[in-house]
Amino acid sequence: MTQCGDATDAIDTPALVIDLDAMQRNLQRMAAFASDRNLRLRPHAKMHKSAIIAKLQIEAGAVGVCVQKVEEAESLAAGGVHDIFISNEVIAPHKLARLAALAKRIRIAVAVDSELGVQRLAQALQCAGATADCFVEVDVGQGRCGVAPAAAGALALQVTAAGLHLAGLQAYHGTAQHLRTAAQSGAAIETAVALARAAQASLLAAGLVCPLVTGAGTGSFEFEAASGVFGELQCGSYLFMDRDYAENQVSPGAPRFEHALFVKSQVMSRAVSHAVIDAGHKAYAVDSGPPRVWGRELEFAGCSDEHGVLRARGDALPELGESIWLVPGHCDPTVNLHDRYVVVRGGLAHGQVEALWRVDARGAMA
Amino acid sequence: MTQCGDATDAIDTPALVIDLDAMQRNLQRMAAFASDRNLRLRPHAKMHKSAIIAKLQIEAGAVGVCVQKVEEAESLAAGGVHDIFISNEVIAPHKLARLAALAKRIRIAVAVDSELGVQRLAQALQCAGATADCFVEVDVGQGRCGVAPAAAGALALQVTAAGLHLAGLQAYHGTAQHLRTAAQSGAAIETAVALARAAQASLLAAGLVCPLVTGAGTGSFEFEAASGVFGELQCGSYLFMDRDYAENQVSPGAPRFEHALFVKSQVMSRAVSHAVIDAGHKAYAVDSGPPRVWGRELEFAGCSDEHGVLRARGDALPELGESIWLVPGHCDPTVNLHDRYVVVRGGLAHGQVEALWRVDARGAMA
Repeated sequence: MTQCGDATDAIDTPALVIDLDAMQRNLQRMAAFASDRNLRLRPHAKMHKSAIIAKLQIEAGAVGVCVQKVEEAESLAAGGVHDIFISNEVIAPHKLARLAALAKRIRIAVAVDSELGVQRLAQALQCAGATADCFVEVDVGQGRCGVAPAAAGALALQVTAAGLHLAGLQAYHGTAQHLRTAAQSGAAIETAVALARAAQASLLAAGLVCPLVTGAGTGSFEFEAASGVFGELQCGSYLFMDRDYAENQVSPGAPRFEHALFVKSQVMSRAVSHAVIDAGHKAYAVDSGPPRVWGRELEFAGCSDEHGVLRARGDALPELGESIWLVPGHCDPTVNLHDRYVVVRGGLAHGQVEALWRVDARGAMA
Repeated sequence: MTQCGDATDAIDTPALVIDLDAMQRNLQRMAAFASDRNLRLRPHAKMHKSAIIAKLQIEAGAVGVCVQKVEEAESLAAGGVHDIFISNEVIAPHKLARLAALAKRIRIAVAVDSELGVQRLAQALQCAGATADCFVEVDVGQGRCGVAPAAAGALALQVTAAGLHLAGLQAYHGTAQHLRTAAQSGAAIETAVALARAAQASLLAAGLVCPLVTGAGTGSFEFEAASGVFGELQCGSYLFMDRDYAENQVSPGAPRFEHALFVKSQVMSRAVSHAVIDAGHKAYAVDSGPPRVWGRELEFAGCSDEHGVLRARGDALPELGESIWLVPGHCDPTVNLHDRYVVVRGGLAHGQVEALWRVDARGAMA
């Protein structure tokens, strides 16, 4: 079993490894970006699911964190995080009761996009004698959750009529995060900004002021930040940077982030034509494509539940027992497969294990 | 929180649900198939990762179970499973030490495909004063682990020379499991059988008898069973039947299996054009494609980490708060996302929770 002080070479495989030096550089870069522009930063903790990391982000200036699930909020609150926005709708009354119980202890915000959601939230909070911030979610182009911009005012009126605190608008464009060129994501966010403005106007027409527009992700934040409409950025993946996000083109002048999350694996079978590593679907998610081999010119030729297959490209095939480091295709669901992070200082090749951190909210789906 | 005795309608979402009636019919059908043909059945527990389920399979006639990882074997052994084949290579010395420690307590078998693997296994077992069955893995067409058939005899000689017990050949063809027509999988297994025969001949030429050929999966077992070469079947997914396996054509006369594993979700946002459910990549794996909506004519239009999007097809869109049952695209990595099974009797619509079972080996990757 991997222990603090171990050399990176001795880390048991498969393992989810944080390059702490790289992570801290990413953390500082985004904190500086937001603070330079007088924007609030509320990083998405659905990505890392760790109270320790959330607290590092808050220490560096974040106002709190986002999550998607009540159970995630409970896990992070148990780890000492005191300001959490559930940037998602909660409909089930028993989940709302849990949310209200949590809102008695820490600062909680939540999104709504239906009258039923507003009513049930108000009832749960009243029943518990708790308060929470309430964001009206607007669909700004993703076609997932959220009301149409023109309907935002009417729903916001229901929020205030139910005695809830209207904290603003949630305007996140998920699909814009994964467009490959800055021109494409810029165009998508231009539309999102126009729709967020329309929602603000809908609130104004209803006699309500919009205190804050919150949204943005690692693939688009430079555009929301420059819009003059968004007051809060919710980026999450910048901290770890997966293979998919790293394939996005970055505008000149926008901050760049390094890979800081890896899956360490080992060659456990070796043929003439290929090497097989001991990590497959159960060690990394492939919903955004396969992982990339890190630090060697090898083709990741395919994977199954417990295996990955490598072929030679620029470099020769690794031998039986050699370590292979992978950059996951997608951080969030990869992290969700692991119970802990192995936290490394001094680089992957010759570094040392500095800490083992629990993935506190792993499997917290409710 | 979901409890025993709850109606299925009250199960908190997202939840991993077993239809126990369907699972037990699947269990009996495969047990009868193997016993009618005097074949050993050693189901793959990498699929369900549950000691309770493994013991139900053994009670119904299975000789033991397979797993892929030492840590999975440890989890199931802790739950009372006493005969486990790690149908995979183990190379790291500290993993082999754990394997050897386990082999002191229960019956353990393991696969080898390299001289280094044989030497290290022999050393670890000797050091612990333990014994284990050793299968030489042969690549019978998948192009993953295993030696070429002609090399099986030489490696088997190393096994016996190292003082290990040669238990036979592991000859699993993974890619043959997911071919859509019986003609395609039949042809792939015809080749696999020929290669397994060649490996047997290679053993014979080395002066060794092959006690057993083990392999086969849910997508091909009828062909291995009919081959006269395979003495043991390793099928796993038959018990739960995911969307992917159900899309395979089945030969007339071959046993048919029912969907017995579901993810229960709930509509948490509703637009005119679509409904959004509270279950995404973190509740089901999509490496073999998306889940299918069960019991309703609805299109599963896409998903992200915590959401799924449904569109109307034959049936109208469900309303906010309605339950939606999904058949996962791929059982194994879906199960691996959850900490427990909610076990239901009496059907999904009007049944009752009979038990909550731990997914004992969830995340057991080492």
